[in-house]
Amino acid sequence: MHSHFRPGPLPLAMQLTPEGRLKHLLTTEGLPASLIHEIMDRAEQFVTLPAKQQKKAPLLRGKTVMNLFFENSTRTRVTFETAAQRLGADVANLDIRTSSASKGESLLDTVRNLEAMNADIFVVRHEHAGTAQFIARYSAPHVSVLNAGDGRHAHPTQALLDMFTIRQRKGEFAPLRVAIVGDVMHSRVARSQIHALSILGTGEIRVIAPRTLVPTGLERMGVRVFHELDAGLKDVDVVIMLRLQRERMEGALLPSESEFFKLYGLKPENLERTRPDAIVMHPGPINRGVEIDTEVADGPRSVILTQVTNGIAVRMAVMAMVMGAQAGGVA
Amino acid sequence: MHSHFRPGPLPLAMQLTPEGRLKHLLTTEGLPASLIHEIMDRAEQFVTLPAKQQKKAPLLRGKTVMNLFFENSTRTRVTFETAAQRLGADVANLDIRTSSASKGESLLDTVRNLEAMNADIFVVRHEHAGTAQFIARYSAPHVSVLNAGDGRHAHPTQALLDMFTIRQRKGEFAPLRVAIVGDVMHSRVARSQIHALSILGTGEIRVIAPRTLVPTGLERMGVRVFHELDAGLKDVDVVIMLRLQRERMEGALLPSESEFFKLYGLKPENLERTRPDAIVMHPGPINRGVEIDTEVADGPRSVILTQVTNGIAVRMAVMAMVMGAQAGGVA
Amino acid sequence: MHSHFRPGPLPLAMQLTPEGRLKHLLTTEGLPASLIHEIMDRAEQFVTLPAKQQKKAPLLRGKTVMNLFFENSTRTRVTFETAAQRLGADVANLDIRTSSASKGESLLDTVRNLEAMNADIFVVRHEHAGTAQFIARYSAPHVSVLNAGDGRHAHPTQALLDMFTIRQRKGEFAPLRVAIVGDVMHSRVARSQIHALSILGTGEIRVIAPRTLVPTGLERMGVRVFHELDAGLKDVDVVIMLRLQRERMEGALLPSESEFFKLYGLKPENLERTRPDAIVMHPGPINRGVEIDTEVADGPRSVILTQVTNGIAVRMAVMAMVMGAQAGGVA
Repeated sequence: MHSHFRPGPLPLAMQLTPEGRLKHLLTTEGLPASLIHEIMDRAEQFVTLPAKQQKKAPLLRGKTVMNLFFENSTRTRVTFETAAQRLGADVANLDIRTSSASKGESLLDTVRNLEAMNADIFVVRHEHAGTAQFIARYSAPHVSVLNAGDGRHAHPTQALLDMFTIRQRKGEFAPLRVAIVGDVMHSRVARSQIHALSILGTGEIRVIAPRTLVPTGLERMGVRVFHELDAGLKDVDVVIMLRLQRERMEGALLPSESEFFKLYGLKPENLERTRPDAIVMHPGPINRGVEIDTEVADGPRSVILTQVTNGIAVRMAVMAMVMGAQAGGVA
Repeated sequence: MHSHFRPGPLPLAMQLTPEGRLKHLLTTEGLPASLIHEIMDRAEQFVTLPAKQQKKAPLLRGKTVMNLFFENSTRTRVTFETAAQRLGADVANLDIRTSSASKGESLLDTVRNLEAMNADIFVVRHEHAGTAQFIARYSAPHVSVLNAGDGRHAHPTQALLDMFTIRQRKGEFAPLRVAIVGDVMHSRVARSQIHALSILGTGEIRVIAPRTLVPTGLERMGVRVFHELDAGLKDVDVVIMLRLQRERMEGALLPSESEFFKLYGLKPENLERTRPDAIVMHPGPINRGVEIDTEVADGPRSVILTQVTNGIAVRMAVMAMVMGAQAGGVA
Repeated sequence: MHSHFRPGPLPLAMQLTPEGRLKHLLTTEGLPASLIHEIMDRAEQFVTLPAKQQKKAPLLRGKTVMNLFFENSTRTRVTFETAAQRLGADVANLDIRTSSASKGESLLDTVRNLEAMNADIFVVRHEHAGTAQFIARYSAPHVSVLNAGDGRHAHPTQALLDMFTIRQRKGEFAPLRVAIVGDVMHSRVARSQIHALSILGTGEIRVIAPRTLVPTGLERMGVRVFHELDAGLKDVDVVIMLRLQRERMEGALLPSESEFFKLYGLKPENLERTRPDAIVMHPGPINRGVEIDTEVADGPRSVILTQVTNGIAVRMAVMAMVMGAQAGGVA
């Protein structure tokens, strides 16, 4: 990987058109609050409109979405694929690991070839931070790039569907206390959530994690850091559990899974510390008995499956917006 | 796999709605004869209607079909995918072997996530008996589950397309003698065929197999068992050859493939024992020279390729029916 | 592989209907010039018509395209898949390496099964020369076969998109000098290009390659052979670089990649020998620094990405024509 893969500070202009419309979605960092609300408003329409109705005036008819997955993730791929199909787009799935990359072609040459096939949207998943940004920087003007997860950097559609779910259940962000619990260090989801929560003016953003799993600089972003679960959960409105990325953990940052569960796993008794109407979120797939107790995951406060449903709607909203598609057709 | 994967006696109500319409298709066992005929009537319409005509009023527009294949079967997957596409549905193929199951997510969590994405139909293929039934039992009310083969248990769409092919060629079932030949013991196809033939009132159902490949209890189902090919073929109207599931054979139940072919392979001379207008069927893929002679497979009595064509139509019929889709649109 | 896989002289009638329309596309050899121009004329329409416009009257609605890839090629598969989707066809991708072939089914049985599913077009990629032709010979009358590359034999859609690109840029073929550079011996692309250039009456066709990589019989086809790059490039209008098929090279036909680049790689200084308005082509994926210098590949004379765009249009044209689809609908 080249050095320009490391994502530096992102010029806001890169994600927006000169007129301020969404062009690429690479990170939640620096997005205007009004734009995030616009995405959520669009998603709201898709959540309520029956699929069959949507199919009658497909917003992305004639558009081609290419899923470039350099890292295997069937679940995420299916959410983007389903969102694109519901909008009437053509979809091609490229498992790049088994593709021309192995014939020695460079990433940029692969991208240039696909955009020459008149791809309109690239959905990019890559194990290295900055890949989606790199592709966006060098892609043709007619192409939009959506980051579906890049290393430890960002996973913006996940964060936006989380914001949408919070807004759906709680309304305003200003009065809310939101706690993010778990392996924040290795989590692109947490990074994107913190940016989005901050932009939307969330009253208080907390992180609850063992010292070894807290990245530096959180306080500078206005985040309150807790190392003890019950203390951090006190009076929060929203609990966001993170997946324990076992495959990303390097070496012995944690004693054991059962030890982690004891200290940071969300159990019914921990929920007694939160506001009585607090909701529980998780990006999935969940590790039952590792970061979350089964009773909590399946309990009345869990909105985990609602997040999944909202994920389709948010991805439809983002795709429609980057293509400039209005209710009456593609602009 | 958990013990609840083992399929017990299936409550009929599980496959039907309270109004008696098809909800899931898990097994042919216990299906009302009238419902099987309804499926065949719908399939008949699809066989005769040109594809382009069907596309003008796609019955499943706005519906999402997810193919959950835990076991590799490109051929079966393509039949369901093609059937779904012809009905205008969106289709997502999930090769679960390489998916989040490997991230430690349970089967139920995978299913709940996919149904939260508003999947409408799950097509399930799994090496363990009862998986489709298990998913149907715990899935959301809006979802229908179609069993595309579960272990040695059932393969209902295969059996239904076989029934449809017999009805097409022979009309009534009551006057017919039907012989199923080969490895009945390991065959989910044979199990589903015997149930369907029995429900449709077939005059005589025979099984022809070596003693080691006959499951117990067949006689109780009214099946006549033969161990000698020519004896069993005498005066039959329909010969259904089974694929020799070499990969499922455990140990030395058979002397050799050539020995099997000599004793149970269908050769031109064996066909002299049947009724002169008997038809020859096989679920495919065929092992030429193992369970069937090439001359027979390609001969005038073979309806093997007709079965394949009918397979698309029957799967379209089943999908349309579980979605409550009428000719005028989805109900 | 059977002996009939080796492609012999192809009866022209096999690619054409009795009325002279395109039925299969297996090789450019023997195609009438008028038919090649008709393909290019159709492609021209697709290049200029916006995708959304095309979607309103999808020429292949109700048709099913099956991509039979016995050899992995994500890029080529995506071009055919995208072309088919833009025409409104249903598409099924079959990775045959992992499919029923592995269950011992013969190629012909696989094909017969797929055509019984009412497949309309087979796109075939195979490592053995003659496979597409073999399938076309034995397939059902309603099926059309498109060769997407068979061994070292032919890659006709690639050659046709190259011809289309040349015509787009240069107009007439008669006044042109065209040089094909590199590993001609192992190249199905070069074979198909030479036939097409010859049929279209190209003024002069040259091949530039080391002695070890020149097949016999080229002179008989009216091709001038050069072993020295600059000599061969003198005054040409079109330079077609071939990919160095490293994976196909057997043993030590070449000293090393850097040696090859030095002698036969296209560098800016070599381009000084050509006509000032010469264009540079390459079928991709390119090996930068092996057969082509980066400055040339990305330079103003390169039409490599235009070839990719044209590749979709040409494949749409071929698919529409073999299905007899007119602008007003499928004939």
